[in-house]
Amino acid sequence: MARTLPLADRTPPFERIAIVGFGLIGGSLAMAIRQRWTSGLIIAVDRKDVLEMAMRMQAADVGGDDLVMAAGADLVVLAAPVLQNHRILEQLADVLPGDALVTDAGSTKQAIVEAAKGLPPRLRFVGGHPLAGAAAGGLRTARADLFADRPWIFTPDDRSRPEDVQRLEQLVGAVGARPQRMTPAAHDRLVAFLSHLPQLTASALMHVVGTNAGLEGLALAGQGLRDTTRLATSPACIWRDILRTNSTEIVAAIDALIAVLQQLRADASGEDQALERIFESAAEWKRAIEADTSQQ
Amino acid sequence: MARTLPLADRTPPFERIAIVGFGLIGGSLAMAIRQRWTSGLIIAVDRKDVLEMAMRMQAADVGGDDLVMAAGADLVVLAAPVLQNHRILEQLADVLPGDALVTDAGSTKQAIVEAAKGLPPRLRFVGGHPLAGAAAGGLRTARADLFADRPWIFTPDDRSRPEDVQRLEQLVGAVGARPQRMTPAAHDRLVAFLSHLPQLTASALMHVVGTNAGLEGLALAGQGLRDTTRLATSPACIWRDILRTNSTEIVAAIDALIAVLQQLRADASGEDQALERIFESAAEWKRAIEADTSQQ
Repeated sequence: MARTLPLADRTPPFERIAIVGFGLIGGSLAMAIRQRWTSGLIIAVDRKDVLEMAMRMQAADVGGDDLVMAAGADLVVLAAPVLQNHRILEQLADVLPGDALVTDAGSTKQAIVEAAKGLPPRLRFVGGHPLAGAAAGGLRTARADLFADRPWIFTPDDRSRPEDVQRLEQLVGAVGARPQRMTPAAHDRLVAFLSHLPQLTASALMHVVGTNAGLEGLALAGQGLRDTTRLATSPACIWRDILRTNSTEIVAAIDALIAVLQQLRADASGEDQALERIFESAAEWKRAIEADTSQQ
Repeated sequence: MARTLPLADRTPPFERIAIVGFGLIGGSLAMAIRQRWTSGLIIAVDRKDVLEMAMRMQAADVGGDDLVMAAGADLVVLAAPVLQNHRILEQLADVLPGDALVTDAGSTKQAIVEAAKGLPPRLRFVGGHPLAGAAAGGLRTARADLFADRPWIFTPDDRSRPEDVQRLEQLVGAVGARPQRMTPAAHDRLVAFLSHLPQLTASALMHVVGTNAGLEGLALAGQGLRDTTRLATSPACIWRDILRTNSTEIVAAIDALIAVLQQLRADASGEDQALERIFESAAEWKRAIEADTSQQ
Protein backbone atom coordinates (compact mmCIF):
# COMPACT_ATOMS: atom_id res chain seq x y z
CA MET A 1 0.00 0.00 0.00
CA ALA A 2 1.58 3.22 -1.16
CA ARG A 3 1.87 5.89 1.49
CA THR A 4 2.28 9.55 0.62
CA LEU A 5 4.49 11.45 3.00
CA PRO A 6 3.59 15.08 3.71
CA LEU A 7 5.68 17.38 1.55
CA ALA A 8 7.63 18.65 4.56
CA ASP A 9 8.76 15.10 5.30
CA ARG A 10 9.85 14.31 1.76
CA THR A 11 12.21 17.24 1.33
CA PRO A 12 14.57 18.72 3.88
CA PRO A 13 13.53 22.10 5.32
CA PHE A 14 16.67 23.62 3.72
CA GLU A 15 17.87 23.07 0.15
CA ARG A 16 21.54 23.87 0.57
CA ILE A 17 23.08 23.27 3.98
CA ALA A 18 26.65 24.42 4.59
CA ILE A 19 28.32 22.76 7.58
CA VAL A 20 31.42 24.66 8.68
CA GLY A 21 33.61 22.39 10.81
CA PHE A 22 33.12 18.80 9.71
CA GLY A 23 33.97 16.89 12.90
CA LEU A 24 31.89 14.59 15.09
CA ILE A 25 28.92 16.99 15.31
CA GLY A 26 29.07 18.43 11.79
CA GLY A 27 29.81 15.08 10.16
CA SER A 28 27.10 13.28 12.13
CA LEU A 29 24.55 15.94 11.19
CA ALA A 30 25.46 15.54 7.52
CA MET A 31 25.22 11.74 7.72
CA ALA A 32 21.88 11.95 9.54
CA ILE A 33 20.48 14.35 6.95
CA ARG A 34 21.76 12.10 4.13
CA GLN A 35 20.11 9.09 5.73
CA ARG A 36 16.82 10.94 6.13
CA TRP A 37 16.53 12.66 2.75
CA THR A 38 17.86 11.99 -0.74
CA SER A 39 17.42 15.55 -1.93
CA GLY A 40 19.16 18.65 -0.57
CA LEU A 41 22.79 19.67 -1.02
CA ILE A 42 25.32 19.32 1.76
CA ILE A 43 28.33 21.63 1.56
CA ALA A 44 31.29 20.86 3.83
CA VAL A 45 33.81 23.49 4.88
CA ASP A 46 36.93 22.23 6.65
CA ARG A 47 40.61 21.43 6.11
CA LYS A 48 41.48 19.51 2.93
CA ASP A 49 42.26 16.21 4.71
CA VAL A 50 38.93 16.31 6.52
CA LEU A 51 37.11 17.06 3.27
CA GLU A 52 38.76 14.09 1.59
CA MET A 53 37.47 11.84 4.35
CA ALA A 54 34.01 13.45 4.13
CA MET A 55 33.91 12.69 0.41
CA ARG A 56 35.06 9.11 0.91
CA MET A 57 32.30 8.70 3.53
CA GLN A 58 29.81 10.27 1.08
CA ALA A 59 28.77 12.57 3.92
CA ALA A 60 28.97 15.75 1.80
CA ASP A 61 28.11 16.60 -1.83
CA VAL A 62 30.67 19.36 -2.23
CA GLY A 63 33.34 20.81 -0.02
CA GLY A 64 36.10 23.34 0.26
CA ASP A 65 38.53 24.77 2.75
CA ASP A 66 37.36 28.33 2.16
CA LEU A 67 34.27 29.83 3.74
CA VAL A 68 33.16 31.14 0.31
CA MET A 69 31.94 27.57 -0.28
CA ALA A 70 29.01 28.50 1.97
CA ALA A 71 28.02 31.45 -0.24
CA GLY A 72 24.97 29.81 -1.80
CA ALA A 73 23.62 28.06 1.29
CA ASP A 74 20.23 28.79 2.79
CA LEU A 75 21.38 27.29 6.11
CA VAL A 76 24.88 27.69 7.56
CA VAL A 77 25.72 25.50 10.56
CA LEU A 78 28.82 26.50 12.55
CA ALA A 79 30.10 23.23 14.02
CA ALA A 80 33.73 24.06 14.84
CA PRO A 81 35.06 24.50 18.40
CA VAL A 82 33.41 27.46 20.15
CA LEU A 83 35.95 30.24 19.58
CA GLN A 84 36.47 29.15 15.96
CA ASN A 85 32.71 29.53 15.49
CA HIS A 86 33.11 33.09 16.79
CA ARG A 87 35.87 33.85 14.28
CA ILE A 88 33.86 32.31 11.42
CA LEU A 89 30.80 34.30 12.44
CA GLU A 90 32.78 37.52 12.05
CA GLN A 91 33.64 36.63 8.45
CA LEU A 92 30.14 35.61 7.35
CA ALA A 93 28.92 39.07 6.32
CA ASP A 94 31.79 39.42 3.83
CA VAL A 95 31.40 35.95 2.41
CA LEU A 96 27.65 35.40 2.16
CA PRO A 97 26.13 37.76 -0.43
CA GLY A 98 22.47 36.88 0.07
CA ASP A 99 19.98 35.88 2.76
CA ALA A 100 20.75 32.89 4.96
CA LEU A 101 19.82 31.38 8.27
CA VAL A 102 22.86 30.78 10.49
CA THR A 103 22.96 28.48 13.50
CA ASP A 104 25.78 26.99 15.54
CA ALA A 105 26.33 23.81 17.54
CA GLY A 106 28.62 25.18 20.24
CA SER A 107 28.50 24.33 23.94
CA THR A 108 27.95 27.91 25.13
CA LYS A 109 25.26 30.27 23.89
CA GLN A 110 25.27 33.73 25.48
CA ALA A 111 28.57 34.81 23.91
CA ILE A 112 27.73 33.71 20.35
CA VAL A 113 24.16 35.04 20.49
CA GLU A 114 25.62 38.37 21.60
CA ALA A 115 28.26 38.28 18.84
CA ALA A 116 25.62 37.41 16.22
CA LYS A 117 23.91 40.75 16.89
CA GLY A 118 26.71 42.22 14.75
CA LEU A 119 25.52 40.32 11.65
CA PRO A 120 23.70 42.29 8.92
CA PRO A 121 19.90 41.73 9.03
CA ARG A 122 19.93 39.48 5.93
CA LEU A 123 21.85 36.89 7.99
CA ARG A 124 19.41 35.63 10.63
CA PHE A 125 20.96 33.80 13.57
CA VAL A 126 19.49 31.23 15.99
CA GLY A 127 21.91 29.65 18.50
CA GLY A 128 21.79 25.90 18.90
CA HIS A 129 23.44 23.16 20.94
CA PRO A 130 23.02 19.41 20.43
CA LEU A 131 23.68 17.67 23.77
CA ALA A 132 25.32 14.71 22.14
CA GLY A 133 28.71 13.15 21.67
CA ALA A 134 32.10 14.38 22.71
CA ALA A 135 33.13 17.77 21.38
CA ALA A 136 36.42 16.45 20.06
CA GLY A 137 35.69 13.12 18.48
CA GLY A 138 36.51 14.16 14.91
CA LEU A 139 34.85 13.04 11.69
CA ARG A 140 36.21 9.52 12.13
CA THR A 141 33.79 9.01 15.06
CA ALA A 142 30.77 10.60 13.35
CA ARG A 143 27.61 8.52 13.00
CA ALA A 144 24.12 9.10 11.63
CA ASP A 145 22.40 8.20 14.92
CA LEU A 146 24.45 10.50 17.15
CA PHE A 147 21.47 12.75 17.89
CA ALA A 148 18.88 10.00 18.39
CA ASP A 149 16.80 10.85 21.47
CA ARG A 150 19.28 13.53 22.55
CA PRO A 151 18.17 17.10 23.29
CA TRP A 152 19.03 19.81 20.77
CA ILE A 153 18.59 23.16 22.46
CA PHE A 154 17.82 26.33 20.49
CA THR A 155 18.22 29.71 22.10
CA PRO A 156 16.17 32.19 20.01
CA ASP A 157 16.38 35.83 21.10
CA ASP A 158 14.06 38.77 20.39
CA ARG A 159 15.53 39.14 16.90
CA SER A 160 14.84 35.54 15.89
CA ARG A 161 11.98 34.81 13.48
CA PRO A 162 9.58 32.10 14.75
CA GLU A 163 9.54 30.39 11.32
CA ASP A 164 13.35 30.08 11.36
CA VAL A 165 13.27 28.39 14.76
CA GLN A 166 10.52 26.05 13.56
CA ARG A 167 12.46 25.02 10.47
CA LEU A 168 15.54 24.29 12.57
CA GLU A 169 13.44 22.25 14.99
CA GLN A 170 11.95 20.38 12.05
CA LEU A 171 15.45 19.63 10.75
CA VAL A 172 16.90 18.33 14.01
CA GLY A 173 13.68 16.51 14.94
CA ALA A 174 13.86 14.68 11.62
CA VAL A 175 17.35 13.41 12.44
CA GLY A 176 16.11 12.02 15.75
CA ALA A 177 16.93 14.81 18.22
CA ARG A 178 14.46 16.26 20.73
CA PRO A 179 14.37 20.03 20.02
CA GLN A 180 14.02 22.32 23.05
CA ARG A 181 13.96 26.09 23.52
CA MET A 182 15.73 28.01 26.23
CA THR A 183 17.14 31.50 26.71
CA PRO A 184 20.89 31.74 26.15
CA ALA A 185 21.35 32.56 29.86
CA ALA A 186 19.27 29.59 31.05
CA HIS A 187 21.17 27.33 28.65
CA ASP A 188 24.58 28.45 29.85
CA ARG A 189 23.65 28.09 33.51
CA LEU A 190 22.18 24.61 32.93
CA VAL A 191 25.13 23.23 30.95
CA ALA A 192 27.56 24.69 33.49
CA PHE A 193 26.07 22.14 35.91
CA LEU A 194 25.07 19.29 33.55
CA SER A 195 28.21 19.25 31.45
CA HIS A 196 30.98 21.72 32.34
CA LEU A 197 31.18 20.98 36.08
CA PRO A 198 31.24 17.16 35.60
CA GLN A 199 34.06 17.56 33.05
CA LEU A 200 36.15 19.88 35.22
CA THR A 201 35.53 17.65 38.24
CA ALA A 202 36.51 14.46 36.41
CA SER A 203 39.74 16.03 35.16
CA ALA A 204 40.56 17.61 38.54
CA LEU A 205 39.90 14.30 40.32
CA MET A 206 42.02 12.24 37.92
CA HIS A 207 44.87 14.76 38.22
CA VAL A 208 44.72 14.70 42.04
CA VAL A 209 44.37 10.92 42.36
CA GLY A 210 47.12 10.21 39.82
CA THR A 211 49.50 12.71 41.38
CA ASN A 212 48.97 11.30 44.87
CA ALA A 213 48.55 7.58 44.20
CA GLY A 214 51.19 7.31 41.49
CA LEU A 215 51.33 4.61 38.82
CA GLU A 216 51.76 1.79 41.33
CA GLY A 217 48.80 2.97 43.38
CA LEU A 218 46.62 3.53 40.32
CA ALA A 219 47.18 -0.11 39.34
CA LEU A 220 44.90 -1.00 42.29
CA ALA A 221 42.08 1.32 41.15
CA GLY A 222 38.61 -0.17 40.84
CA GLN A 223 35.62 0.56 38.64
CA GLY A 224 34.48 3.44 40.86
CA LEU A 225 37.49 5.62 40.07
CA ARG A 226 37.38 4.56 36.41
CA ASP A 227 33.75 5.61 35.94
CA THR A 228 34.09 8.82 37.90
CA THR A 229 37.01 9.88 35.69
CA ARG A 230 35.77 8.59 32.31
CA LEU A 231 35.71 12.13 30.91
CA ALA A 232 39.31 12.82 31.94
CA THR A 233 40.81 12.29 28.47
CA SER A 234 38.88 15.25 27.02
CA PRO A 235 41.28 17.67 25.33
CA ALA A 236 42.05 21.01 26.95
CA CYS A 237 41.66 22.92 23.64
CA ILE A 238 37.91 22.32 23.49
CA TRP A 239 37.46 23.19 27.16
CA ARG A 240 39.59 26.33 26.96
CA ASP A 241 36.96 27.85 24.64
CA ILE A 242 34.10 26.74 26.89
CA LEU A 243 35.83 28.17 29.98
CA ARG A 244 36.36 31.49 28.18
CA THR A 245 32.79 31.81 26.94
CA ASN A 246 30.93 30.59 30.05
CA SER A 247 33.20 31.79 32.82
CA THR A 248 30.60 33.36 35.12
CA GLU A 249 28.40 30.27 35.23
CA ILE A 250 31.36 27.92 35.52
CA VAL A 251 32.81 29.90 38.44
CA ALA A 252 29.42 29.71 40.18
CA ALA A 253 29.19 25.95 39.56
CA ILE A 254 32.72 25.31 40.85
CA ASP A 255 31.96 27.41 43.92
CA ALA A 256 28.83 25.37 44.61
CA LEU A 257 30.82 22.12 44.42
CA ILE A 258 33.64 23.46 46.59
CA ALA A 259 31.09 24.54 49.21
CA VAL A 260 29.70 20.99 49.42
CA LEU A 261 33.20 19.47 49.53
CA GLN A 262 33.99 21.88 52.38
CA GLN A 263 30.94 20.55 54.25
CA LEU A 264 32.15 16.97 53.78
CA ARG A 265 35.61 18.05 54.89
CA ALA A 266 34.18 19.66 58.02
CA ASP A 267 32.28 16.43 58.70
CA ALA A 268 35.43 14.32 58.26
CA SER A 269 37.28 16.55 60.70
CA GLY A 270 34.43 16.32 63.23
CA GLU A 271 33.17 19.89 62.93
CA ASP A 272 29.84 19.19 61.23
CA GLN A 273 27.54 16.36 60.28
CA ALA A 274 26.81 16.77 56.58
CA LEU A 275 27.46 13.33 55.09
CA GLU A 276 23.97 11.85 55.54
CA ARG A 277 22.19 14.91 54.15
CA ILE A 278 24.49 15.16 51.10
CA PHE A 279 24.54 11.42 50.34
CA GLU A 280 20.77 11.07 50.67
CA SER A 281 20.17 14.06 48.39
CA ALA A 282 22.72 12.70 45.87
CA ALA A 283 21.14 9.23 45.90
CA GLU A 284 17.69 10.72 45.29
CA TRP A 285 18.85 12.81 42.32
CA LYS A 286 20.79 9.84 40.94
CA ARG A 287 17.75 7.58 41.12
CA ALA A 288 15.75 10.35 39.41
CA ILE A 289 18.19 10.40 36.47
CA GLU A 290 18.23 6.64 36.11
CA ALA A 291 14.42 6.38 36.35
CA ASP A 292 14.20 8.99 33.61
CA THR A 293 16.53 6.93 31.38
CA SER A 294 14.52 3.76 31.84
CA GLN A 295 11.44 5.58 30.54
CA GLN A 296 13.11 6.48 27.26
CA MET B 1 46.04 -38.16 32.62
CA ALA B 2 45.63 -37.91 36.39
CA ARG B 3 47.19 -34.85 37.97
CA THR B 4 48.02 -34.71 41.66
CA LEU B 5 47.57 -31.29 43.19
CA PRO B 6 50.03 -30.23 45.88
CA LEU B 7 48.56 -30.82 49.35
CA ALA B 8 48.25 -27.08 49.98
CA ASP B 9 46.01 -26.78 46.93
CA ARG B 10 43.74 -29.66 47.84
CA THR B 11 42.74 -28.41 51.29
CA PRO B 12 42.03 -24.87 52.36
CA PRO B 13 44.68 -23.20 54.52
CA PHE B 14 42.14 -23.01 57.36
CA GLU B 15 39.83 -25.82 58.54
CA ARG B 16 37.09 -23.78 60.16
CA ILE B 17 36.49 -20.28 58.81
CA ALA B 18 34.02 -18.04 60.64
CA ILE B 19 32.76 -15.12 58.57
CA VAL B 20 31.15 -12.44 60.73
CA GLY B 21 28.95 -10.22 58.59
CA PHE B 22 27.61 -12.23 55.67
CA GLY B 23 27.01 -9.51 53.07
CA LEU B 24 28.51 -8.98 49.62
CA ILE B 25 32.12 -9.40 50.80
CA GLY B 26 31.57 -12.12 53.42
CA GLY B 27 29.11 -14.05 51.27
CA SER B 28 31.29 -13.82 48.17
CA LEU B 29 34.32 -15.04 50.13
CA ALA B 30 32.31 -18.03 51.39
CA MET B 31 31.04 -18.84 47.89
CA ALA B 32 34.54 -18.51 46.43
CA ILE B 33 35.99 -20.82 49.10
CA ARG B 34 33.17 -23.31 48.51
CA GLN B 35 33.83 -23.28 44.79
CA ARG B 36 37.56 -23.80 45.34
CA TRP B 37 37.55 -26.53 48.00
CA THR B 38 35.10 -29.22 49.07
CA SER B 39 36.61 -29.62 52.55
CA GLY B 40 36.72 -26.98 55.28
CA LEU B 41 33.86 -25.68 57.40
CA ILE B 42 32.32 -22.26 56.79
CA ILE B 43 30.57 -20.71 59.77
CA ALA B 44 28.34 -17.69 59.11
CA VAL B 45 27.51 -15.12 61.78
CA ASP B 46 24.81 -12.59 60.93
CA ARG B 47 21.13 -11.79 61.49
CA LYS B 48 18.68 -14.71 61.22
CA ASP B 49 17.18 -13.60 57.88
CA VAL B 50 20.63 -13.30 56.33
CA LEU B 51 21.58 -16.74 57.67
CA GLU B 52 18.48 -18.27 56.12
CA MET B 53 19.49 -16.87 52.76
CA ALA B 54 23.08 -18.07 53.26
CA MET B 55 21.81 -21.60 53.93
CA ARG B 56 19.50 -21.55 50.91
CA MET B 57 22.47 -20.41 48.81
CA GLN B 58 24.57 -23.20 50.35
CA ALA B 59 27.21 -20.57 51.04
CA ALA B 60 27.73 -21.62 54.68
CA ASP B 61 27.77 -24.96 56.52
CA VAL B 62 26.54 -23.65 59.85
CA GLY B 63 25.42 -20.27 61.09
CA GLY B 64 24.14 -18.33 64.04
CA ASP B 65 23.31 -14.80 65.05
CA ASP B 66 25.61 -14.95 68.10
CA LEU B 67 29.36 -14.43 67.94
CA VAL B 68 29.88 -17.61 70.04
CA MET B 69 29.32 -19.48 66.76
CA ALA B 70 32.88 -18.45 65.90
CA ALA B 71 34.30 -20.11 69.03
CA GLY B 72 35.85 -23.12 67.26
CA ALA B 73 37.17 -21.31 64.19
CA ASP B 74 40.85 -21.19 63.32
CA LEU B 75 40.20 -18.13 61.09
CA VAL B 76 37.73 -15.37 61.93
CA VAL B 77 36.98 -12.88 59.13
CA LEU B 78 35.26 -9.64 60.19
CA ALA B 79 33.24 -8.59 57.13
CA ALA B 80 30.67 -6.22 58.62
CA PRO B 81 30.71 -2.43 58.10
CA VAL B 82 33.83 -0.84 59.59
CA LEU B 83 32.58 0.32 62.99
CA GLN B 84 30.65 -2.91 63.52
CA ASN B 85 33.93 -4.75 62.92
CA HIS B 86 35.40 -2.61 65.70
CA ARG B 87 32.59 -3.54 68.11
CA ILE B 88 32.89 -7.24 67.21
CA LEU B 89 36.65 -7.09 67.71
CA GLU B 90 36.12 -5.88 71.27
CA GLN B 91 33.99 -8.93 72.05
CA LEU B 92 36.29 -11.55 70.53
CA ALA B 93 38.47 -12.13 73.62
CA ASP B 94 35.40 -13.08 75.67
CA VAL B 95 33.92 -15.33 73.00
CA LEU B 96 36.90 -17.17 71.51
CA PRO B 97 38.43 -19.52 74.11
CA GLY B 98 41.40 -20.77 72.11
CA ASP B 99 43.92 -19.62 69.51
CA ALA B 100 42.68 -18.08 66.29
CA LEU B 101 43.82 -15.88 63.46
CA VAL B 102 41.59 -12.84 63.00
CA THR B 103 41.43 -10.68 59.90
CA ASP B 104 38.95 -8.11 58.64
CA ALA B 105 37.76 -6.87 55.27
CA GLY B 106 37.09 -3.24 56.16
CA SER B 107 37.91 -0.21 54.01
CA THR B 108 40.18 1.49 56.57
CA LYS B 109 43.11 -0.15 58.33
CA GLN B 110 44.97 2.08 60.81
CA ALA B 111 42.08 2.27 63.29
CA ILE B 112 41.35 -1.47 63.38
CA VAL B 113 45.03 -2.47 63.48
CA GLU B 114 45.43 -0.11 66.44
CA ALA B 115 42.31 -1.51 68.14
CA ALA B 116 43.51 -5.08 67.57
CA LYS B 117 46.52 -4.40 69.78
CA GLY B 118 44.08 -4.83 72.68
CA LEU B 119 43.45 -8.50 71.78
CA PRO B 120 45.06 -11.18 73.98
CA PRO B 121 48.16 -12.72 72.33
CA ARG B 122 46.33 -15.99 71.51
CA LEU B 123 44.20 -14.01 69.02
CA ARG B 124 46.57 -12.97 66.25
CA PHE B 125 45.33 -10.17 64.00
CA VAL B 126 46.26 -9.22 60.42
CA GLY B 127 44.24 -6.43 58.81
CA GLY B 128 42.94 -6.99 55.31
CA HIS B 129 40.98 -5.18 52.60
CA PRO B 130 39.70 -6.68 49.36
CA LEU B 131 39.38 -3.88 46.79
CA ALA B 132 36.28 -5.36 45.24
CA GLY B 133 32.57 -4.76 45.01
CA ALA B 134 30.42 -2.19 46.67
CA ALA B 135 30.52 -2.13 50.45
CA ALA B 136 26.75 -2.30 50.76
CA GLY B 137 25.59 -4.79 48.17
CA GLY B 138 24.26 -7.37 50.64
CA LEU B 139 24.36 -11.16 50.36
CA ARG B 140 21.88 -11.05 47.49
CA THR B 141 24.60 -9.55 45.26
CA ALA B 142 27.38 -11.92 46.43
CA ARG B 143 29.18 -13.97 43.79
CA ALA B 144 32.05 -16.44 43.79
CA ASP B 145 34.12 -14.45 41.29
CA LEU B 146 33.90 -11.09 43.09
CA PHE B 147 37.62 -11.13 43.95
CA ALA B 148 38.91 -12.36 40.59
CA ASP B 149 41.93 -10.27 39.61
CA ARG B 150 41.17 -7.70 42.29
CA PRO B 151 43.79 -6.64 44.86
CA TRP B 152 43.41 -7.90 48.44
CA ILE B 153 45.63 -5.76 50.63
CA PHE B 154 47.01 -7.08 53.94
CA THR B 155 48.49 -4.68 56.47
CA PRO B 156 50.68 -6.75 58.83
CA ASP B 157 52.29 -4.85 61.70
CA ASP B 158 55.28 -5.71 63.88
CA ARG B 159 53.17 -8.12 65.93
CA SER B 160 52.02 -10.15 62.89
CA ARG B 161 53.52 -13.60 62.30
CA PRO B 162 54.85 -14.08 58.76
CA GLU B 163 53.23 -17.55 58.50
CA ASP B 164 49.80 -16.04 59.31
CA VAL B 165 50.15 -13.47 56.55
CA GLN B 166 51.27 -16.20 54.13
CA ARG B 167 48.27 -18.40 54.93
CA LEU B 168 45.91 -15.47 54.39
CA GLU B 169 47.61 -14.67 51.10
CA GLN B 170 47.30 -18.31 50.08
CA LEU B 171 43.57 -18.23 50.90
CA VAL B 172 42.74 -15.07 48.98
CA GLY B 173 45.06 -15.98 46.12
CA ALA B 174 43.21 -19.28 45.77
CA VAL B 175 39.89 -17.43 45.35
CA GLY B 176 41.37 -15.34 42.55
CA ALA B 177 42.49 -12.18 44.35
CA ARG B 178 45.94 -10.59 44.00
CA PRO B 179 47.34 -10.36 47.54
CA GLN B 180 49.43 -7.30 48.35
CA ARG B 181 51.14 -6.01 51.50
CA MET B 182 51.16 -2.43 52.74
CA THR B 183 51.48 -0.61 56.03
CA PRO B 184 48.13 0.44 57.54
CA ALA B 185 49.12 4.10 57.05
CA ALA B 186 50.10 3.61 53.38
CA HIS B 187 46.83 1.71 52.80
CA ASP B 188 44.66 4.42 54.34
CA ARG B 189 46.38 7.18 52.41
CA LEU B 190 46.09 5.26 49.13
CA VAL B 191 42.39 4.37 49.48
CA ALA B 192 41.60 7.94 50.54
CA PHE B 193 42.57 8.88 46.97
CA LEU B 194 41.61 5.71 45.03
CA SER B 195 38.26 5.10 46.67
CA HIS B 196 37.11 7.59 49.32
CA LEU B 197 37.71 10.79 47.34
CA PRO B 198 35.98 9.51 44.16
CA GLN B 199 32.96 8.46 46.27
CA LEU B 200 32.70 11.78 48.12
CA THR B 201 33.21 13.68 44.85
CA ALA B 202 30.55 11.69 43.00
CA SER B 203 28.00 12.26 45.78
CA ALA B 204 28.89 15.95 46.17
CA LEU B 205 28.66 16.48 42.40
CA MET B 206 25.30 14.72 42.06
CA HIS B 207 23.92 16.73 44.99
CA VAL B 208 25.12 20.03 43.50
CA VAL B 209 23.99 19.27 39.94
CA GLY B 210 20.59 17.97 41.04
CA THR B 211 19.97 20.91 43.35
CA ASN B 212 20.89 23.45 40.66
CA ALA B 213 19.56 21.80 37.50
CA GLY B 214 16.35 20.40 39.01
CA LEU B 215 14.39 17.45 37.65
CA GLU B 216 13.61 19.18 34.37
CA GLY B 217 17.25 20.09 33.80
CA LEU B 218 18.48 16.62 34.79
CA ALA B 219 16.25 15.13 32.10
CA LEU B 220 18.73 16.60 29.58
CA ALA B 221 21.78 15.01 31.24
CA GLY B 222 24.10 12.98 29.05
CA GLN B 223 26.35 10.01 29.64
CA GLY B 224 29.15 12.19 31.04
CA LEU B 225 27.20 13.22 34.12
CA ARG B 226 25.82 9.69 34.50
CA ASP B 227 29.25 8.06 34.55
CA THR B 228 30.81 10.70 36.77
CA THR B 229 28.07 10.16 39.36
CA ARG B 230 27.65 6.39 39.10
CA LEU B 231 28.74 5.95 42.73
CA ALA B 232 26.18 8.48 44.00
CA THR B 233 23.67 5.90 45.24
CA SER B 234 26.12 4.53 47.84
CA PRO B 235 24.51 4.57 51.30
CA ALA B 236 25.65 7.11 53.88
CA CYS B 237 25.81 4.49 56.67
CA ILE B 238 28.80 2.71 55.12
CA TRP B 239 30.59 5.97 54.41
CA ARG B 240 29.93 7.41 57.86
CA ASP B 241 32.17 4.65 59.30
CA ILE B 242 34.86 5.23 56.67
CA LEU B 243 34.81 8.99 57.29
CA ARG B 244 35.18 8.40 61.05
CA THR B 245 38.07 5.94 60.76
CA ASN B 246 40.07 7.66 58.00
CA SER B 247 39.36 11.31 58.70
CA THR B 248 42.92 12.67 58.48
CA GLU B 249 43.63 11.14 55.08
CA ILE B 250 40.19 12.04 53.74
CA VAL B 251 40.57 15.66 54.84
CA ALA B 252 43.93 15.80 53.05
CA ALA B 253 42.44 14.26 49.89
CA ILE B 254 39.47 16.67 49.86
CA ASP B 255 41.87 19.59 50.37
CA ALA B 256 43.96 18.45 47.41
CA LEU B 257 40.88 18.31 45.17
CA ILE B 258 39.58 21.68 46.37
CA ALA B 259 42.99 23.23 45.63
CA VAL B 260 42.82 22.01 42.01
CA LEU B 261 39.21 23.14 41.63
CA GLN B 262 40.31 26.57 42.94
CA GLN B 263 42.98 26.67 40.20
CA LEU B 264 40.35 25.89 37.55
CA ARG B 265 38.08 28.52 39.10
CA ALA B 266 40.88 31.09 38.95
CA ASP B 267 41.42 30.16 35.30
CA ALA B 268 37.71 30.54 34.51
CA SER B 269 37.70 33.97 36.11
CA GLY B 270 40.80 35.01 34.16
CA GLU B 271 43.26 35.09 37.08
CA ASP B 272 45.37 32.08 36.13
CA GLN B 273 45.98 29.64 33.30
CA ALA B 274 45.70 26.17 34.82
CA LEU B 275 43.32 24.30 32.50
CA GLU B 276 45.88 22.95 30.03
CA ARG B 277 48.26 21.72 32.74
CA ILE B 278 45.50 20.00 34.76
CA PHE B 279 43.72 18.47 31.73
CA GLU B 280 46.95 17.17 30.24
CA SER B 281 48.02 15.63 33.53
CA ALA B 282 44.55 14.10 33.99
CA ALA B 283 44.52 12.66 30.46
CA GLU B 284 47.96 11.10 31.02
CA TRP B 285 46.92 9.43 34.29
CA LYS B 286 43.65 8.29 32.73
CA ARG B 287 45.44 6.69 29.79
CA ALA B 288 47.80 5.02 32.28
CA ILE B 289 44.86 3.40 34.11
CA GLU B 290 43.21 2.22 30.93
CA ALA B 291 46.48 0.84 29.53
CA ASP B 292 46.94 -1.07 32.79
CA THR B 293 43.46 -2.60 32.42
CA SER B 294 44.07 -3.72 28.88
CA GLN B 295 47.12 -5.66 30.07
CA GLN B 296 45.09 -7.70 32.53
